[in-house]
Amino acid sequence: MWSKRTDLAVEAKELWRENADKQTELKGVKSREKDSNGFKVTTVEILNDEGAHALNKPVGSYITIEIDRLVQREDNAFTLGAEALSSEISKLLKLKESDSVLVVGLGNEAITPDAVGPKTAKNTMVTRHLVEKMPDMFGSMRRVSVLVSGVLGTTGIESADFIKAVAEKLKPDHVIVVDALASRKLARICRTVQLADTGIVPGSGVGNSRAAINREKLGMPVIAIGVPTVVDAATLAADLAEQAGAKDINPEDMSNYGGDMIVTPKEIDTNVSDISKLIGYGINLALHNNISVEDINMFLS
Amino acid sequence: MWSKRTDLAVEAKELWRENADKQTELKGVKSREKDSNGFKVTTVEILNDEGAHALNKPVGSYITIEIDRLVQREDNAFTLGAEALSSEISKLLKLKESDSVLVVGLGNEAITPDAVGPKTAKNTMVTRHLVEKMPDMFGSMRRVSVLVSGVLGTTGIESADFIKAVAEKLKPDHVIVVDALASRKLARICRTVQLADTGIVPGSGVGNSRAAINREKLGMPVIAIGVPTVVDAATLAADLAEQAGAKDINPEDMSNYGGDMIVTPKEIDTNVSDISKLIGYGINLALHNNISVEDINMFLS
Amino acid sequence: MWSKRTDLAVEAKELWRENADKQTELKGVKSREKDSNGFKVTTVEILNDEGAHALNKPVGSYITIEIDRLVQREDNAFTLGAEALSSEISKLLKLKESDSVLVVGLGNEAITPDAVGPKTAKNTMVTRHLVEKMPDMFGSMRRVSVLVSGVLGTTGIESADFIKAVAEKLKPDHVIVVDALASRKLARICRTVQLADTGIVPGSGVGNSRAAINREKLGMPVIAIGVPTVVDAATLAADLAEQAGAKDINPEDMSNYGGDMIVTPKEIDTNVSDISKLIGYGINLALHNNISVEDINMFLS
Amino acid sequence: MWSKRTDLAVEAKELWRENADKQTELKGVKSREKDSNGFKVTTVEILNDEGAHALNKPVGSYITIEIDRLVQREDNAFTLGAEALSSEISKLLKLKESDSVLVVGLGNEAITPDAVGPKTAKNTMVTRHLVEKMPDMFGSMRRVSVLVSGVLGTTGIESADFIKAVAEKLKPDHVIVVDALASRKLARICRTVQLADTGIVPGSGVGNSRAAINREKLGMPVIAIGVPTVVDAATLAADLAEQAGAKDINPEDMSNYGGDMIVTPKEIDTNVSDISKLIGYGINLALHNNISVEDINMFLS
Repeated sequence: MWSKRTDLAVEAKELWRENADKQTELKGVKSREKDSNGFKVTTVEILNDEGAHALNKPVGSYITIEIDRLVQREDNAFTLGAEALSSEISKLLKLKESDSVLVVGLGNEAITPDAVGPKTAKNTMVTRHLVEKMPDMFGSMRRVSVLVSGVLGTTGIESADFIKAVAEKLKPDHVIVVDALASRKLARICRTVQLADTGIVPGSGVGNSRAAINREKLGMPVIAIGVPTVVDAATLAADLAEQAGAKDINPEDMSNYGGDMIVTPKEIDTNVSDISKLIGYGINLALHNNISVEDINMFLS
Repeated sequence: MWSKRTDLAVEAKELWRENADKQTELKGVKSREKDSNGFKVTTVEILNDEGAHALNKPVGSYITIEIDRLVQREDNAFTLGAEALSSEISKLLKLKESDSVLVVGLGNEAITPDAVGPKTAKNTMVTRHLVEKMPDMFGSMRRVSVLVSGVLGTTGIESADFIKAVAEKLKPDHVIVVDALASRKLARICRTVQLADTGIVPGSGVGNSRAAINREKLGMPVIAIGVPTVVDAATLAADLAEQAGAKDINPEDMSNYGGDMIVTPKEIDTNVSDISKLIGYGINLALHNNISVEDINMFLS
Repeated sequence: MWSKRTDLAVEAKELWRENADKQTELKGVKSREKDSNGFKVTTVEILNDEGAHALNKPVGSYITIEIDRLVQREDNAFTLGAEALSSEISKLLKLKESDSVLVVGLGNEAITPDAVGPKTAKNTMVTRHLVEKMPDMFGSMRRVSVLVSGVLGTTGIESADFIKAVAEKLKPDHVIVVDALASRKLARICRTVQLADTGIVPGSGVGNSRAAINREKLGMPVIAIGVPTVVDAATLAADLAEQAGAKDINPEDMSNYGGDMIVTPKEIDTNVSDISKLIGYGINLALHNNISVEDINMFLS
Repeated sequence: MWSKRTDLAVEAKELWRENADKQTELKGVKSREKDSNGFKVTTVEILNDEGAHALNKPVGSYITIEIDRLVQREDNAFTLGAEALSSEISKLLKLKESDSVLVVGLGNEAITPDAVGPKTAKNTMVTRHLVEKMPDMFGSMRRVSVLVSGVLGTTGIESADFIKAVAEKLKPDHVIVVDALASRKLARICRTVQLADTGIVPGSGVGNSRAAINREKLGMPVIAIGVPTVVDAATLAADLAEQAGAKDINPEDMSNYGGDMIVTPKEIDTNVSDISKLIGYGINLALHNNISVEDINMFLS
């Protein structure tokens, strides 16, 4: 059978439901929804191997925040969204007072839909050197360092190896990796942010699967923050044809249409900039006590 | 009936064929194919109103060059392709010795698939000021000026009005406008260049129809050079669903999937850079006598 | 005698003072200082030909705002500075309710110290098309269009001719041109903004004198806004040597040191970004009634 | 005494000569000149502690190549210059067949005169992953990986620590670091390339001295390649005033003029691009057997 691939746990759950018998119960998985600052937050918890096998994802917590309000540029949506995101990041991290954090931006800045990681890095407050050299002034902040890992073709080094080398040197208490993802549904593109405490397999969304970046690899907790920015064109084609009533689809035929093609919003450049800023600010609010969006504006300007 | 839109005359002809009775003859349109330096060149001539009505395009010549060999980076493909393009541009322009030319790059450089025009402008040799100020040194070249018209949202000025203002001042003998186009078929994206002696309606590919840029508007001959860089996702969806055997498609339903979405190659950044260079060099070779690709490299470096 | 050149009227006045007898009175020139929102504002008015000859500048008003507080990133300095600048722009423009304005960014965006014009253009609210197409929503704003004129080498067209062509088409009531300037004194680099109601001669600061952009050329009032971003290295060398007591300086010798060299701050990239934003916001506040810095943030984001 | 600082060994030697008695001999230092492909090559060898103390540089070989011909865009100068540079790099590296190399670009890409390192990285062929994954195709090349270390303010990590972490992971046989330097003389700015087998202290040219990147730090041989792109404005001022006959200069006074100012060529953007390409190609030619400039063009395009 042609495997339907998605980076999003909420979609993996939908896919399971579509394929399963109506009566079957999804075991080993719990999910719940809530509202946070007006943003819908869905948590999917994969509790054990049974759940992991069903959804084809590692055991762990996956939190999805729907950010339509941000994209529609509602009043105050940016600050409310950054706070909602910050709140979920905090819950996953469980930071202690003196913890240090390494934030890693994955992906290729030269390719717009893949630039979420590097652009988030630019919106993250870098404080490690300030705390160490000017403790009187910056001692109340946590030590945050930032790494943009580049892509294999421009470095010759696997991202996972690169991050491991730096993490072993810096010995941060936590790593946060930020990356672009693939979704199955156009409606989710640039409209959701997923947090996970399982780490990440970079490039899994675009078919270049790489070594995992997670606690097993790095030896410290790894939080992944991802945004779906593309749908694979062949995936979309198959889904649409199915919905249009073409029952006997040969997925290999489908991949002739758009095997190297991606579907993105016309506004992808603006969307990626907006969302990268949101994630960066959400991280900053979560990592430092008693700072505001205005403080971050000032620090980064 | 839902109008199937395309910027390419070869596709308009295909669409007509799909919808017409098998026996019907397409009147008022002639087409022919040839090989030029190993590149396939198709010419569609719309001869009269009957042809114009059938293909929904103005009377004129439309030349399509297939550039797969360039994209696959075959040896020497760039020089051969630039020469093939130059040869077709020359036939449309019919330049006299002392003619001057204004080259206009349409589109938004900040949006990758829309950046063909501005990027071509950077690959075009600007000589007007050199010929006028240093005639001893540059007198053998034609006077070429270059305009990047920007987009309405960043100027407040319609491209057509902007170009008309500058053209009335400079009074060039010819205008060449370069723009990104939309295609219906994934296989043509970043794989063809269309030349037309009819001018252009900018943005027609992405649904923001604007004032035409043609001889009627500007008062001088206008050659358009266009490259399809996107397929509208709704168009693609409808086509695919149809092919998959879903006969009764409601196009309005389809546009729910991807109304604001576009389909592009994963390699769009590289593709747009390569093709913009090809077009710029093709223009340079056509506008100046006795120059080589190496001369252009030197001039532009 | 070696002409000491400066784009700033306040410096021209200083130079005159250095060279004149102590008793001589500078006739035909009035100047005054004031404080605006905590920023020092100096106005030099050249009243007649006698003053124009003495300072080597056209008759008109020249206003200099010292922006050290902005560069030092004092609290609230940006908003206070933009308001102070807006207030002076308003006095020079004397706008009527329905006036339209064309804002022109001069200079080369690819050369950091020359990028003030193009970068200011990006911080200017473009409203002409909105007011005309959506009068219900935007009817209370003035019609503002924006032009980035490019540089001769990349267009083949003189900026003055280019702007004249567009101004004749759009027929704005006022033109505002923004450009980088040269100063004689390091202390003024990126620390002052000069407004003038005399228009501008672009490139005068860096030795490539071009056609003037002023009321005579364009047929409508032209306000110039300029920022000194470089000191010519030869000028600096001569000044410094003089101060160091080397009385008999041969300026031609001096120009051997740095004839093609410029002096800029190490922080020039940040400085140019900050100041371009200040000027753009100052223009926006002056051109539209009842808008705030927050409104502009929202519009431009 | 006010220390006269320079990154270039040839200048350190000149400074020593200016300050020493005419009769004194510079001990512990040997130097020689030669021509290579029409480029002047000067080698200064610091042989022992006496020489190191005199020139204020570590013991080692310093090779300066004068590249005026490149900047003046003479015919074929690029290829000849890249070959001359490659030849000197080869002599310093003494590569074995299976050696691997890590190339590091130091500096801040966002600040033009500091961008030589990151821009050279983009002109370096990255082969490590290709050789390892496709040995049949790329097995004849050496394994080259590339690192752009970023700057402290955007990472929170010292470049030396960062490079050490990656070098310990990759275990290359050689490290090449590329950086912008400061010179004392305008005539050398963007006109010379210095190679040294001593490693480098990054940022030494602009007053932000950092931890050394050399064999002691990294545990493997480190070649440094540097280009002077700026003169410190205060240094220049003092030099010029001295030459103009102002004998009693107080250097602290002088630093009031331009303490935060740098002197660069007007054409710095073009200069830095050209030289970064030259260095990248010189490295490529030195690291791989039997490749040509055309091969590199193809690989990097």
